Amino acid sequence: MTNKGRVTIPSEGNYLEETKRLMKLWGADAIRDSDGTKLDEGLKQLKAKIYTTYFVARGHNEFIQEHLEEVQQLYLLSERVTATDATVTIPFLNGFFEEQIKPNYDDDPKHFWEVRDRTTGEVVPAADWHYEAAANQVIVQNITAFHEYTVSFLAYMIWDPTQMYNHITNDWGDKPHDIPFDVRKDFSKGYMAEFLKNWLAENPDTDVVRFTTFFYHFTLFFNQLGKEKFVDWFGYGGTVSVDALQEFEKAKGYALTPEDFVDEGYYNSTFRTPSQAYLDYIDFIQKFVAEEAKALVDLTHESGKEAMMFLGDNWIGTEPYGKYFKDIGIDAVVGSVGNGTTLRLISEIPHVKYTEGRFLPYFFPDVFKEGNDPTAEARENWLTARRAILRKPVDRIGYGGYLSLANQFPDFVEYIAEVADEFRDLYEKIKDVAPYTGLKIGIVNAWGKLRSWQTHMVAHALWYQQIYSYNGILEALSGQKVAVEFFTFDEIKAGIPEDIDVLINAGDGYTAYSGGAAWEDPELIQTIFSWVNQGGGFIGVGEPSAFQKNGRYFQLASLLGVEKEQGFSLSTDKYFHEEQPEHFITKHCQSFDFGEGQKNIFSLHTETEILNIQEGSVQLAANQFGRGRSVYISGLPYSPENSDLLLRALFYAAGQEDRLNEWYSENPNVEVHAYPGIQKYVVVNNHNQAETALVYLIGGKHEVFELKPGEIIWRDYDG
Amino acid sequence: MTNKGRVTIPSEGNYLEETKRLMKLWGADAIRDSDGTKLDEGLKQLKAKIYTTYFVARGHNEFIQEHLEEVQQLYLLSERVTATDATVTIPFLNGFFEEQIKPNYDDDPKHFWEVRDRTTGEVVPAADWHYEAAANQVIVQNITAFHEYTVSFLAYMIWDPTQMYNHITNDWGDKPHDIPFDVRKDFSKGYMAEFLKNWLAENPDTDVVRFTTFFYHFTLFFNQLGKEKFVDWFGYGGTVSVDALQEFEKAKGYALTPEDFVDEGYYNSTFRTPSQAYLDYIDFIQKFVAEEAKALVDLTHESGKEAMMFLGDNWIGTEPYGKYFKDIGIDAVVGSVGNGTTLRLISEIPHVKYTEGRFLPYFFPDVFKEGNDPTAEARENWLTARRAILRKPVDRIGYGGYLSLANQFPDFVEYIAEVADEFRDLYEKIKDVAPYTGLKIGIVNAWGKLRSWQTHMVAHALWYQQIYSYNGILEALSGQKVAVEFFTFDEIKAGIPEDIDVLINAGDGYTAYSGGAAWEDPELIQTIFSWVNQGGGFIGVGEPSAFQKNGRYFQLASLLGVEKEQGFSLSTDKYFHEEQPEHFITKHCQSFDFGEGQKNIFSLHTETEILNIQEGSVQLAANQFGRGRSVYISGLPYSPENSDLLLRALFYAAGQEDRLNEWYSENPNVEVHAYPGIQKYVVVNNHNQAETALVYLIGGKHEVFELKPGEIIWRDYDG
Repeated sequence: MTNKGRVTIPSEGNYLEETKRLMKLWGADAIRDSDGTKLDEGLKQLKAKIYTTYFVARGHNEFIQEHLEEVQQLYLLSERVTATDATVTIPFLNGFFEEQIKPNYDDDPKHFWEVRDRTTGEVVPAADWHYEAAANQVIVQNITAFHEYTVSFLAYMIWDPTQMYNHITNDWGDKPHDIPFDVRKDFSKGYMAEFLKNWLAENPDTDVVRFTTFFYHFTLFFNQLGKEKFVDWFGYGGTVSVDALQEFEKAKGYALTPEDFVDEGYYNSTFRTPSQAYLDYIDFIQKFVAEEAKALVDLTHESGKEAMMFLGDNWIGTEPYGKYFKDIGIDAVVGSVGNGTTLRLISEIPHVKYTEGRFLPYFFPDVFKEGNDPTAEARENWLTARRAILRKPVDRIGYGGYLSLANQFPDFVEYIAEVADEFRDLYEKIKDVAPYTGLKIGIVNAWGKLRSWQTHMVAHALWYQQIYSYNGILEALSGQKVAVEFFTFDEIKAGIPEDIDVLINAGDGYTAYSGGAAWEDPELIQTIFSWVNQGGGFIGVGEPSAFQKNGRYFQLASLLGVEKEQGFSLSTDKYFHEEQPEHFITKHCQSFDFGEGQKNIFSLHTETEILNIQEGSVQLAANQFGRGRSVYISGLPYSPENSDLLLRALFYAAGQEDRLNEWYSENPNVEVHAYPGIQKYVVVNNHNQAETALVYLIGGKHEVFELKPGEIIWRDYDG
Repeated sequence: MTNKGRVTIPSEGNYLEETKRLMKLWGADAIRDSDGTKLDEGLKQLKAKIYTTYFVARGHNEFIQEHLEEVQQLYLLSERVTATDATVTIPFLNGFFEEQIKPNYDDDPKHFWEVRDRTTGEVVPAADWHYEAAANQVIVQNITAFHEYTVSFLAYMIWDPTQMYNHITNDWGDKPHDIPFDVRKDFSKGYMAEFLKNWLAENPDTDVVRFTTFFYHFTLFFNQLGKEKFVDWFGYGGTVSVDALQEFEKAKGYALTPEDFVDEGYYNSTFRTPSQAYLDYIDFIQKFVAEEAKALVDLTHESGKEAMMFLGDNWIGTEPYGKYFKDIGIDAVVGSVGNGTTLRLISEIPHVKYTEGRFLPYFFPDVFKEGNDPTAEARENWLTARRAILRKPVDRIGYGGYLSLANQFPDFVEYIAEVADEFRDLYEKIKDVAPYTGLKIGIVNAWGKLRSWQTHMVAHALWYQQIYSYNGILEALSGQKVAVEFFTFDEIKAGIPEDIDVLINAGDGYTAYSGGAAWEDPELIQTIFSWVNQGGGFIGVGEPSAFQKNGRYFQLASLLGVEKEQGFSLSTDKYFHEEQPEHFITKHCQSFDFGEGQKNIFSLHTETEILNIQEGSVQLAANQFGRGRSVYISGLPYSPENSDLLLRALFYAAGQEDRLNEWYSENPNVEVHAYPGIQKYVVVNNHNQAETALVYLIGGKHEVFELKPGEIIWRDYDG
């Protein structure tokens, strides 16, 4: 086994000797700088790839100060003001952070802004309002008293959101504010290319340009107190400008309105079922960003360096599962690994030479401090991600922050050495072989492939009460013996691919993930019924297929065997509360945790198998339809037990229970993965305690494994 | 104080002496028969009013057997059948009780039935289906595979629902099934009049004809197992017939379709926001029923007897708060008193000489059995109803069942004597005087006045998980120092009456009680905003003004200061979780019980006063708007504490906190009512335990009262 390579570490000035020691210990073959650290000459001369962080659209105030009309912009919606007579004054900057937001008066507001009556949804004619730039307010006339009014206005974003966040969080005082600028503007575009050219020449020791990232930051703006007001990791809000609007109209043949951006105040959150206009705009931006990014990547290649992209910050338009990503020609993507889902999000990225996962904890004082145990965090992070790595590995792992800080924790240093060796070992074994896969799962929502491994996410990896009960689905799948593909409703309508065994629809009613109005389409419903009737499996979580219509809330109610009481059918008696004492799906369930779960879910008929019911509401149920089956789950926060429950539900829905016990562990904390191509299998203890597990191998064989905390055991097999 | 009168008791054959004794003890002045009991000659000669139960539209099989085409009918919706190819067979009687339901093949099904594609909602052309009467099935052709299909069919209801219920519940074996018949048909109409004429002549001793009730039973049908399948105490389903349809078209100028009755399977449940067609139909039936009922009442009067109507069973079309009720000319209404709400439902009925409340328990063996304590139930019932009686008394109280059975429980007999005396005493005092009223409350929903004191009711007084958190509102109001009036959204839109202090909108989203699409109307919203701005008070409970539109779920969100997260605004940060430690509204709250409560309610701005928040979701909040206020409550099951909370919320919303301490008890179990017209006030202990209460009187005076369990204390005052 090779004990060198595939590991990137951060370093910093005046830390040469210790860096050498740690490189050897960890087998690192690449060194990076980080926020706040720079690599000195000595480090750059080490036998290692040198990554250098590069900011394209920020950190160049000396330039942008001269071209403030090229600052990045976004459309914002003012707070709603209720008129109390025929005139209303809207101080539209209220609630925004004036250090970040500056209204754009350069492009005629009367033309590019919009005033709306939010009580009716109607636009107020431009003739009926005017603005006072000095006071940042709009005065609206001839209106209806006691209606609510808003201003949608174009604004400059004069402070880069990420730097703003770090600046405020770390109290950087009078450190200048990075002003972001827009590649769509001539000076900016020219500057970005020129600067990069020179920079490439001036940084001969840099092997990998770590773009952080390209042009447009995800939507993130603060409130008047300098606290986060809105964050959408997927948001395209900060990409707009008059030029963008005009070019969009040329490209797509119709004009966008401010409402297409502010979206009633929801700003096209990824939880909204996207409008066609927004989908067109995403396509328009992605195409443009791909072209512009390619130019920079080409320059990078011409200088003999690699181009690596960080997945985040200014990543808007580069969505790696999008249509134009491959055109960028990027060599690698690096992203932060918070769990199995984010690992797969990174490792599955197509059209790159390699992917790199930046593992936690980040070497920052918040974790690396007296009395804290960074090793525990590192172990948790590794065990969580490892099960996903065993399905589809990233090509490299890495860390970030202050190396000198981490080095003060010998246990941690030791543990990372183990992790690095373990990673290299498993990577060498499985890098080119497909793992055994028992089923193929299709996940259907409004975003489909574009947001593979990114469902129910608000801000990257943050916990929200409204999403954790869904996040468990992908987290479970990320480390299971199934293949996963993402589909839009239109794709499913067009025909469910031959190789799909089970379809999953999960989410709260009317969100992009359950689908909302998509279920108004009889063709979609028909396609799924027909497919299940022929033996397909369907799993609905939360409020699947929810759209109140034709006497149903769940449009697939008769497929699921359950429906949600919306208050209209209280007059209809609900019988069927009998729980099935035993069922294939619940074999290992000592107790149940459906997270937020659901209220008012009732069984439609006696054929529905109720597997769990709480306070009169069905939480888990199965139903046969024709030759196929469906399973309803009210919520699935991640836990090893729920992961096992889902896996069993998948095999049950697919009607392939008999195949579960091939490469399957009876202990939810322990998983087994086989690699037919190399006739090896691995048994992993995902738990930080010793575990005993009865593991089913191939051909009816099984064996009991005793595993140490977090242990990974490789075996050969023939069959 | 008079110790005789205003009390009705049941009696039975061969029970003369004991009946006399109990009449004396209870001061009863009226005797009634009951289901299963008949009064004999001896009883009829007693010095007492004789009530005789009379069934108009059932219990006359000798007649209806000869005219089966006049049996009452209803429209029913078959179960949904999913087609698996281009033809589908629908055995439309599946799930119905064939002893109750008989398809009507006499009126051409091709014309009066309807087949629908429930996946699209479209009607299937009659040409594409045919029926097989023998098999009770419909075969549909040229359809879309994997769509769901239903048959809406006209059926005879060959068993009266109430008798069916009693028959099955009490195992009446081969006792003949009462077949209900339809007053709209000539023979039936003629027979009803003729039979009554003769009956009146043959029953000279009857003073009061207790109609149980008139023509049409509320919608109630059973399933194939002879168990309740659907029950709606307000349902007009069982009133239909081809004649009714044709006369409706003449009267209203357009034709109804089967869908107007089956309503996607919801059968126009009172929780559905009613369609115009259904409202027109209700009007049409009420007008007709009033005319026909008047004819019978006139006959009754001609024979020198009184006509009393029982509120229930065949009461459809006679809704006492409806437009045509007064035309019936009924003398009295008697109804079952389950709580304060039902007491007010009865006692507020207009256009009658008197009302009578039938109190619980009913003298039946289920309660009056060895080891059971009927007195406890009677006391609970009396104390619950009494607080409502003190606001607006019924004119009489009564009991039902087997007198001989009750008589075996001496404690019970003694307690009823006390209740009767207490009732007569308070009635004599307050019958003609208005109680002191601090505020006037308007309750706005889709039904308005028509269903006064009848909101959130499925089957008369039954508990449902989805309604108890709303039922507490009326129950609290039924015994409080406020006046209550019910309004439709249109009435409110037309202008909120001068004398209303606080408006209440309560219910789950999209139901008739919160209002659903009514909130799509900007005028309604504008009216309420404007009114509150001028000082009006608004209280929203549950999902008030819920209708997803223009960026809001609660259309009155900015009035309430809270909104419900539907998943679209997760990207917007929610600050404001601070609970107000102390507030006028929560002064007496040791703990909170919001029943089902709500999830995902968040405060919109820092001005909102959060009074209770649980797991991040606001349960109780107040908000100022202009000169007015609003209060949000997530749910309000009845309890003395919640009753007090609501009363304080009402005075707070009205901006009249300073007036609360006039006739107010600091102890939620104790209430005080004043009667300025007679300069008396009464302090009542609603609790079956001794209570001490600081009671605020008039003019800043207050006094501490020590009350025995359930005690009522009358006092004079001047001021």
